[in-house]
Amino acid sequence: MSSTSSFQPGHARSETSLFHGLSSAEVTRLEEACVEAKSRAHCPYSHFRVGASLLLTSGAIIQGANVENAAYPVGTCAERVAIATAVVQGAKKGDFRALAVATNISPPASPCGMCRQFIREFCDLDMPVLMYDVAGKVVVMTLEQLLPMSFGPDKLLSAE
Amino acid sequence: MSSTSSFQPGHARSETSLFHGLSSAEVTRLEEACVEAKSRAHCPYSHFRVGASLLLTSGAIIQGANVENAAYPVGTCAERVAIATAVVQGAKKGDFRALAVATNISPPASPCGMCRQFIREFCDLDMPVLMYDVAGKVVVMTLEQLLPMSFGPDKLLSAE
Amino acid sequence: MSSTSSFQPGHARSETSLFHGLSSAEVTRLEEACVEAKSRAHCPYSHFRVGASLLLTSGAIIQGANVENAAYPVGTCAERVAIATAVVQGAKKGDFRALAVATNISPPASPCGMCRQFIREFCDLDMPVLMYDVAGKVVVMTLEQLLPMSFGPDKLLSAE
Amino acid sequence: MSSTSSFQPGHARSETSLFHGLSSAEVTRLEEACVEAKSRAHCPYSHFRVGASLLLTSGAIIQGANVENAAYPVGTCAERVAIATAVVQGAKKGDFRALAVATNISPPASPCGMCRQFIREFCDLDMPVLMYDVAGKVVVMTLEQLLPMSFGPDKLLSAE
Ligand SMILES: [Zn+2]
Ligand SMILES: [Zn+2]
Ligand SMILES: [Zn+2]
Ligand SMILES: [Zn+2]
Repeated sequence: MSSTSSFQPGHARSETSLFHGLSSAEVTRLEEACVEAKSRAHCPYSHFRVGASLLLTSGAIIQGANVENAAYPVGTCAERVAIATAVVQGAKKGDFRALAVATNISPPASPCGMCRQFIREFCDLDMPVLMYDVAGKVVVMTLEQLLPMSFGPDKLLSAE
Repeated sequence: MSSTSSFQPGHARSETSLFHGLSSAEVTRLEEACVEAKSRAHCPYSHFRVGASLLLTSGAIIQGANVENAAYPVGTCAERVAIATAVVQGAKKGDFRALAVATNISPPASPCGMCRQFIREFCDLDMPVLMYDVAGKVVVMTLEQLLPMSFGPDKLLSAE
Repeated sequence: MSSTSSFQPGHARSETSLFHGLSSAEVTRLEEACVEAKSRAHCPYSHFRVGASLLLTSGAIIQGANVENAAYPVGTCAERVAIATAVVQGAKKGDFRALAVATNISPPASPCGMCRQFIREFCDLDMPVLMYDVAGKVVVMTLEQLLPMSFGPDKLLSAE
Repeated sequence: MSSTSSFQPGHARSETSLFHGLSSAEVTRLEEACVEAKSRAHCPYSHFRVGASLLLTSGAIIQGANVENAAYPVGTCAERVAIATAVVQGAKKGDFRALAVATNISPPASPCGMCRQFIREFCDLDMPVLMYDVAGKVVVMTLEQLLPMSFGPDKLLSAE
């Protein structure tokens, strides 16, 4: 898809250039955190491990992992856990700079539609979502690319 | 958005031309059914009425409406109700030709991300989703346009 | 659990006696409908088939089955599909006389907590929930027994 | 309900007696943490603030709050956020000693059915759930009392 961007970590890039507004060091922190979070997944039903990481404007990194349930619809995904944890720690709309997700497949898995909607509540449409495959290759799309013509908080208000 | 298509019902079109594979009569049936379904919504919390309709390959129309719950996350949306009802009536992947959604706002509301994901399980990527605003204006996008680079059933299998 | 009631279909009971307000014929209709609905389940991930049936005050029977999704939390359960379908057909609070659920295990499975909450929105606390195991044995509990001290619509209002 | 237990914080109790296995100091920590977490709720739609706190066997306290979404079913509850955050931090089945929930109503609100099911995946049936009302009064029920005859992980396995 021509509108996505990708690069290989380790690829020679200037340390001062930014990738979707992220420094090379920030991308590395995001990748390491989402890959590490995979190990905390509770996924005895799907055996499909997902790790997520969030970079906040404060510089903090917040992790998430999928937490499944015997009643499948009751479980939750890595991306939503990371964002909800951040909110409970005080993060608000405007405080989110990037989200990263790691799985054990290739090409990389994208956030499910439910998570894209959850992200939409808090994050800017141009926030990058970094999706890592099992080998560390990454595909990046913005929230708007992942959830075009989205249903957001403003829609509810326009109904009143 | 240039990739979407729209038309005014009643606009002069040849009766034999197809719109996303739909005849003018089929579009009319979809619109009438989703608008009518809005009246059945259970939405005492949001007061945001949504009606949905599905056209199956059999020619059958199935309706849905949002069914909210005092515990908000437990409720469900019009689109998911329509599809699940169709599945219980025997519909399978390949049996879905179009989905229509009607709300009382303008511009029209799109399916939430959770519904886009639910649709993805059963419908082809080029299936049209017709979104009607309160005045009957429609915006149409395919499932792939609404949920690009989607996480579908094949992803789970590739993990094994 | 002493507060539950059970009986064997076919067990000698007076045809005129009622079981949780249900006639023998009504119990039979509920059982047949939920067992039959199991065949319509979309459960390629859990392989756990669930069928549900609702008896309305109109005498109508509405069926449901579980509809899973590759993104597990996005799927839905048989009980919720049945109730939402009934609501879209016009059923309102007060129109529900009994819910039945059938699975392929023994002892019978109960509705998950999410479904108990969904039921709570529409059904009286003394409504019976009939749970059938694979051999047709049934355990019956009321909604209040399944979801004690429940969070219902009245709680939201009391916050205002 | 005779099977529940309650007490007034500040009521004269021996400091060494245990309440559902909790010391007076532990109960105080749980209460303070769930009340404080309420302030972090993202609830622009319901205006119904919920805070939660978990006590782990390690002695750690984990907080949660409800995080709502414009698409209501996509939001999540305080209890699930707390548990998922704990799991991502490494908590496993057996590591949970108590859950507390605080709202701004009276009598206190209980966890919704979806949360009871989420709790069931990780917590023992005799784990106490402390429910605080706006004035600090508490009602305590065990998980088994809140979700009798529950659908747990063992049910899925018995189907194979
Ligand atoms: Zn997800
Ligand atoms: Zn939706
Ligand atoms: Zn359920
Ligand atoms: Zn809840």
